[in-house]
Amino acid sequence: MIPQPTSLALLTDLYQLTMAQGYWKTGIDQHEAVFHLFFRRNPFKGAYSVACGLAPAIEFIQNLSFDESDRAYLATLEGNDGKPLFEPAFLDYLGGLKFTCDLDAIPEGTIAFPHEPLLRVKGPLLQCQLLETPLLTIINFQTLIATKAARVCLAAQGDPVLEFGLRRAQGIDGGLSASRAAYIGGCAGTSNVLAGKLYGIPVKGTHAHSWIMSFDTEQESFEAYARAMPNNCIFLVDTYNTIEGVKHAIDAGRCLKDAGHEMIGIRLDSGDLTSLSIQARQLLDEAGFENAAIVGSNDLDEYKITDIKKRGGKIAVWGVGTRLATAYDEPALTGVYKLSAIREPGGDWQHRIKLSDDPAKSTTPGIQQVRRFTKDDRFQADIIYNELAPPSDTWQARDINHPNIAITPSPESTSEDLLQPIFRKGKLQSEPPPIEEMRNRCLNQLDALPPELKQNEPNTAYPIGLETSLSELKKNLVEAN
Amino acid sequence: MIPQPTSLALLTDLYQLTMAQGYWKTGIDQHEAVFHLFFRRNPFKGAYSVACGLAPAIEFIQNLSFDESDRAYLATLEGNDGKPLFEPAFLDYLGGLKFTCDLDAIPEGTIAFPHEPLLRVKGPLLQCQLLETPLLTIINFQTLIATKAARVCLAAQGDPVLEFGLRRAQGIDGGLSASRAAYIGGCAGTSNVLAGKLYGIPVKGTHAHSWIMSFDTEQESFEAYARAMPNNCIFLVDTYNTIEGVKHAIDAGRCLKDAGHEMIGIRLDSGDLTSLSIQARQLLDEAGFENAAIVGSNDLDEYKITDIKKRGGKIAVWGVGTRLATAYDEPALTGVYKLSAIREPGGDWQHRIKLSDDPAKSTTPGIQQVRRFTKDDRFQADIIYNELAPPSDTWQARDINHPNIAITPSPESTSEDLLQPIFRKGKLQSEPPPIEEMRNRCLNQLDALPPELKQNEPNTAYPIGLETSLSELKKNLVEAN
Repeated sequence: MIPQPTSLALLTDLYQLTMAQGYWKTGIDQHEAVFHLFFRRNPFKGAYSVACGLAPAIEFIQNLSFDESDRAYLATLEGNDGKPLFEPAFLDYLGGLKFTCDLDAIPEGTIAFPHEPLLRVKGPLLQCQLLETPLLTIINFQTLIATKAARVCLAAQGDPVLEFGLRRAQGIDGGLSASRAAYIGGCAGTSNVLAGKLYGIPVKGTHAHSWIMSFDTEQESFEAYARAMPNNCIFLVDTYNTIEGVKHAIDAGRCLKDAGHEMIGIRLDSGDLTSLSIQARQLLDEAGFENAAIVGSNDLDEYKITDIKKRGGKIAVWGVGTRLATAYDEPALTGVYKLSAIREPGGDWQHRIKLSDDPAKSTTPGIQQVRRFTKDDRFQADIIYNELAPPSDTWQARDINHPNIAITPSPESTSEDLLQPIFRKGKLQSEPPPIEEMRNRCLNQLDALPPELKQNEPNTAYPIGLETSLSELKKNLVEAN
Repeated sequence: MIPQPTSLALLTDLYQLTMAQGYWKTGIDQHEAVFHLFFRRNPFKGAYSVACGLAPAIEFIQNLSFDESDRAYLATLEGNDGKPLFEPAFLDYLGGLKFTCDLDAIPEGTIAFPHEPLLRVKGPLLQCQLLETPLLTIINFQTLIATKAARVCLAAQGDPVLEFGLRRAQGIDGGLSASRAAYIGGCAGTSNVLAGKLYGIPVKGTHAHSWIMSFDTEQESFEAYARAMPNNCIFLVDTYNTIEGVKHAIDAGRCLKDAGHEMIGIRLDSGDLTSLSIQARQLLDEAGFENAAIVGSNDLDEYKITDIKKRGGKIAVWGVGTRLATAYDEPALTGVYKLSAIREPGGDWQHRIKLSDDPAKSTTPGIQQVRRFTKDDRFQADIIYNELAPPSDTWQARDINHPNIAITPSPESTSEDLLQPIFRKGKLQSEPPPIEEMRNRCLNQLDALPPELKQNEPNTAYPIGLETSLSELKKNLVEAN
């Protein structure tokens, strides 16, 4: 359960390894392939997503190696005739495998949209294939949580949001990577101490109900906490009766003041947070604790925060747990990883698509790059194009879901390519930036997002186009199949 | 992101550590406390849950130790006056901390119900407190997934269910522990190879769409796979056109037969699985492949499986991914960990409760044990009682949510206590059983569960009582506060 194996190479679906042996036996393991990792729909009924998880993906790739115990385990697996599934020579081949692919990716903290490759992997077919599952596991979840965090932080309108979700997280790494992604998405800190240590995220916390219940009375417990931890006092006031709790906190705050310290605030963890925070604010202000912050927690999410704000609640710091760390209302991003081109050594690129009854779900061929157009510091449109046939001077595109609609960027817009080189022939091109830089990137990108797209449930979509010649290529391939 | 730290001691909420220092400074760190970990509501609108996660929790406890790097990190944290949050003497104390608690738990694979302690921790207050977050993280998630798996397997009515969720799992350990818990809950295997290696779970898989797309035609790809992996052939038939795909699989199956091998089956991964499986079954049977199984996958859960079964679908093996591994429709179990009794060294036990506006949410005092009554191999009722005041001869209880309703076990029933000793004064009492034993326990327990409680959304509840004297004690404490 606590993943401390020396090797994570087997963190994959078995079919990746059976296909790998198949490619190897068929002699096409070295064919050059291109795969893109993308999602088809923004989560949470939203209009944007926040790319996240690249640095952990890089770390995974750098440590990828099938060690002796991995190969010994694979040697035990049997097919339906009771004979080994894997040949010894193939397991030797796995043992000697070195990552030699090119990887391009959208930097963490970047706003991304459906159909845009978050990652592009180009290299020997067998290696690309083996990376499918772990890349999806890492990128899907962290992108999901960074997106959720951005939504929650936008709802909080600049108030600090703290991620408190560890106890309800989906496993240990579910908690750790949720804390990381939530910070990149805009949270101000986490309660998760190990995430603080591993990722350099600010950590926050004071006491729980059990502190209060360990004493005979609430008053006694607050005063004991104030004596023991005078520089970290946020009193949790709802163990017995919230308003009485606020009064006890005020008394403890006075003791703190007398001793030369300052009460940071109080925390409300149940009941009607709007009315309780209004009452608590008044009591605190009347007692001279205008600077004491009211922290609110209890099953919060972007909708509840929006509602409490609208109704005049006086929460100044938002503790968001389960609904952030598990992305409760949509706990999986449906990212996929699809082959789009392949060539034999020395041969020409063959475009490939996966058809679907729903034409919008058919995949896009080519070696894709995303060009983003910006005007007056606002994102205008993104155009996915094929590096095998890049446009010349003018950018013309077709809406990815509605090919009848043209997308033409304004001539005054500036533009940049989103996918950046991460690995070249297996060599890391540059270390990931510090996590603060990723978080700032996200905040800046959200500033550039058209405001109507930042609503909890917007009814407009951001323009995403397929460059005209790529759109034609896709259409022709769909019709040919 | 990949949790390979030497120590997981900091995998906790910061407030556990600030409270710990508070207990230590206040001189109550050695007071003896009792905490219970329980949930208040079965997930998924169901009538039961499957206890899971104990062995990983034991492993966590056995490795619990604040190493030098943990303490060095804690020493960097500051309070609101810019001074250190933690005192050097406290960090030394943490460094020397050894687990000396008693732990009792309901064995993994046991059916459990709301309000019943899955775990009971008794020992020094500070140690009990430090375990809150990691125990919740581990037990909440694995209990959630084992429960979901049991529901899905019941819907499949004995057909094998394979867990395919790694790519959409919430982080690496989200995937690993989901595979483990899903197996205990009744799944027949997983696609997750590392889970297979770490936990001894059967692993399954053949090929993906990308295999087919790596060749010029589907037919060519199936034949290549049959040559390369003749003892592992389940052909995925929906890359281009499903019915054509089935015909291509039949052709490849004939080649396999000629070479002395057997096609295991085909897999459907999109479209209307009911009608496609009926058509595919007919084509396979007509071609003499009566033994070839049809594997179905694509956003399955207990509701879709029930529906496909009802409509006569011919799926024989169910691949269930996202909705199982993330517990998609309810991705967190709301387990809590509450103090219920405390005593000074040499003193008497003081009962403690946490009040709530909703009386049903007020916690239960005492040192709790669960007695389960069984008659004619069917569970009749569970009664939570206080080991500090156990009943004498006759068992009388009050419904935990409706104290007016009496629960009286039949005199012919047999009974057993569910919580078993795991640690005594920090010493492990016995190693966890093999995972197969946990899985068998779950299957047997589901057999003993009244059938009306096994529906997807039952409208009856299992009787859970508070033993009469404990019910009185709780009532008196609620009224006194």
